[in-house]
Amino acid sequence: MSPPIITLLTDFGAGSGYPAQMKGVLLARLADAQLVDVSHEVPAYDVLAGALLLEACAPRFPREAVHLAVVDPGVGTARRPICVVDREGRRFVGPDNGLFTPFLADAQVRLLAPGGAVPVPTSATFHGRDLFAPVAAWLAAGGEPTRLGPEVADPVQLPWPGAERRGDEIRGECLVADPFGNVLTSIRATDLDARPAGVAVAGAAARFVTTYGEGARGELLALMGSSGRLELAVRQGSAAERLGTYRGIPVTIRMA
Amino acid sequence: MSPPIITLLTDFGAGSGYPAQMKGVLLARLADAQLVDVSHEVPAYDVLAGALLLEACAPRFPREAVHLAVVDPGVGTARRPICVVDREGRRFVGPDNGLFTPFLADAQVRLLAPGGAVPVPTSATFHGRDLFAPVAAWLAAGGEPTRLGPEVADPVQLPWPGAERRGDEIRGECLVADPFGNVLTSIRATDLDARPAGVAVAGAAARFVTTYGEGARGELLALMGSSGRLELAVRQGSAAERLGTYRGIPVTIRMA
Amino acid sequence: MSPPIITLLTDFGAGSGYPAQMKGVLLARLADAQLVDVSHEVPAYDVLAGALLLEACAPRFPREAVHLAVVDPGVGTARRPICVVDREGRRFVGPDNGLFTPFLADAQVRLLAPGGAVPVPTSATFHGRDLFAPVAAWLAAGGEPTRLGPEVADPVQLPWPGAERRGDEIRGECLVADPFGNVLTSIRATDLDARPAGVAVAGAAARFVTTYGEGARGELLALMGSSGRLELAVRQGSAAERLGTYRGIPVTIRMA
Repeated sequence: MSPPIITLLTDFGAGSGYPAQMKGVLLARLADAQLVDVSHEVPAYDVLAGALLLEACAPRFPREAVHLAVVDPGVGTARRPICVVDREGRRFVGPDNGLFTPFLADAQVRLLAPGGAVPVPTSATFHGRDLFAPVAAWLAAGGEPTRLGPEVADPVQLPWPGAERRGDEIRGECLVADPFGNVLTSIRATDLDARPAGVAVAGAAARFVTTYGEGARGELLALMGSSGRLELAVRQGSAAERLGTYRGIPVTIRMA
Repeated sequence: MSPPIITLLTDFGAGSGYPAQMKGVLLARLADAQLVDVSHEVPAYDVLAGALLLEACAPRFPREAVHLAVVDPGVGTARRPICVVDREGRRFVGPDNGLFTPFLADAQVRLLAPGGAVPVPTSATFHGRDLFAPVAAWLAAGGEPTRLGPEVADPVQLPWPGAERRGDEIRGECLVADPFGNVLTSIRATDLDARPAGVAVAGAAARFVTTYGEGARGELLALMGSSGRLELAVRQGSAAERLGTYRGIPVTIRMA
Repeated sequence: MSPPIITLLTDFGAGSGYPAQMKGVLLARLADAQLVDVSHEVPAYDVLAGALLLEACAPRFPREAVHLAVVDPGVGTARRPICVVDREGRRFVGPDNGLFTPFLADAQVRLLAPGGAVPVPTSATFHGRDLFAPVAAWLAAGGEPTRLGPEVADPVQLPWPGAERRGDEIRGECLVADPFGNVLTSIRATDLDARPAGVAVAGAAARFVTTYGEGARGELLALMGSSGRLELAVRQGSAAERLGTYRGIPVTIRMA
């Protein structure tokens, strides 16, 4: 039998010791777990960035994996702790603050109600360790999500940026950058029905290409990235630096 | 049977290749080990910061885990290599420079004496790979610590910052910061017998709260953190930046 | 039986989500794999730095490990995807751009030809996930490298910096720095037949020592590092900062 997989995503910093404490709790409860870091470098408190990373990564794992995700500016306040089972059967554990937005369509959402598999957190500030990790280990060991608590009918959803077609134009916005400085946008490959005639962002033109290598050094490029989203890139440079404050700035594709 | 767990803590940098070389050595000797990074981002040569991370993390793991820890400014000099078995039975391997101070009470400490399970290091600068990793793998495979070498009666202990009560005041000091900029102090939850009336640090007042979410944006807060220590925090900001050079500066709690 | 080991080296950034996507693909195909990060912090597009890390790390792992390495400025262009089996039987998967130079002597190199074990990448920009990871999982599961595709007779090799002896001098150059600011050079321990009389770099003298601890604080040192290469170091400081732009600058050892 394969070891149960638990992935971890936080904004704690890999070296902070906080992910390690969570892993200690996970292994104390499920010694043969296969633990995989998705990221601990989500920008602090940036729930949208965490949600976009989860969207890109979780579907790559076996469906049986449990995804433990904690970007949680509201820890210790009234925000609800939840378990999400998406329509593919993937399981997520973390705060109800929109972090699981990409997986909420037709999902079953459960409140983590203290008692049984759900411990009462011993700290008011580290539910990742005291609440979410024990529940994730319990689920990975075969626990039944319906036993965690009552259904949540109205999980928090982030406003989810998309694309809008107007005549020959498709409009979207810039979202997040990766460490190469490539900027992901809200326009998806599925929003396009042909190769774009042109791309404009922040008053500048970006040349649409198929791969980074086609660009001249320093040229602003647009391409369909590996996440299925339109990306802005600068070959061997940083589009994020070029664009400055990028989140939310409009991107327009001209189709003809 | 569960795989044997070995945790790693260093100041090498996760991407430096040094932790990877240690992992190669561990797996070459114990192929089914479960390797867990505690941190490789301890500030360079900062033995106290490493000791505080170990104190927070090691107790979360199953007691059978072996903790391999290398923050070792004195590598290649006369400082002793040791194995510590603490009073709970937890095993630690690394340099005798105070890194294991939180676990030394009633501990058994052994010198790693070359011969048998203890190799003669092939490099003068990387005992993490050449000396400590082989010993950690040997211990995780069931090796008996008493066979490593003679007992060490006087392991190096760091002066361990604590708290002092004077009348209505409890005094301590700032220690280390986490990646959120929260500053941990030497005052522990167990030093308090009631909710503080006030907290002062570096001439400024900090408001005592239960969780980060209670603060106003930018407000200096004090709270009992997940490590059981008084922390200074700024909501969605950095107390470490606010305080500047923070290590060793006094913190005072007023109890009435 | 021990779990099959797959190591990962990229310039993606550990927290970017890209290594996590690769790990998802690996585990979806080989659920019990032991995944080990060599580094995800190779400087972007720096193939030489990646090759030097592989040289230092891969030989430490069990010979059966598969090494998945992606530093790939030419992704999506005509550069070939390859599998290298070095003369020790170690297996490497990644781009044919010189990243495997240290292992090419007497190696068998195979093109990854689409069909069979080699998928057609679904993205033009992320062969690490779509092409190399599936092949690495297949190899780690026991796949036979000769079945991947035709032999490659002329794999790309980086010009590999070495050392040159002229009379009493050995000349080499600076290569890369580690997170401590130690600068590795192209001069190897095996290039020396005695203890050097002196070391000079960038017009400055470096004192030859055996271990970092021998230096005075701030002094420029030279020593044989754990990688078997001459390193420049500053005790509790950074030789990389001291030297400024260091790659390629000459280092000279005086033997008498």
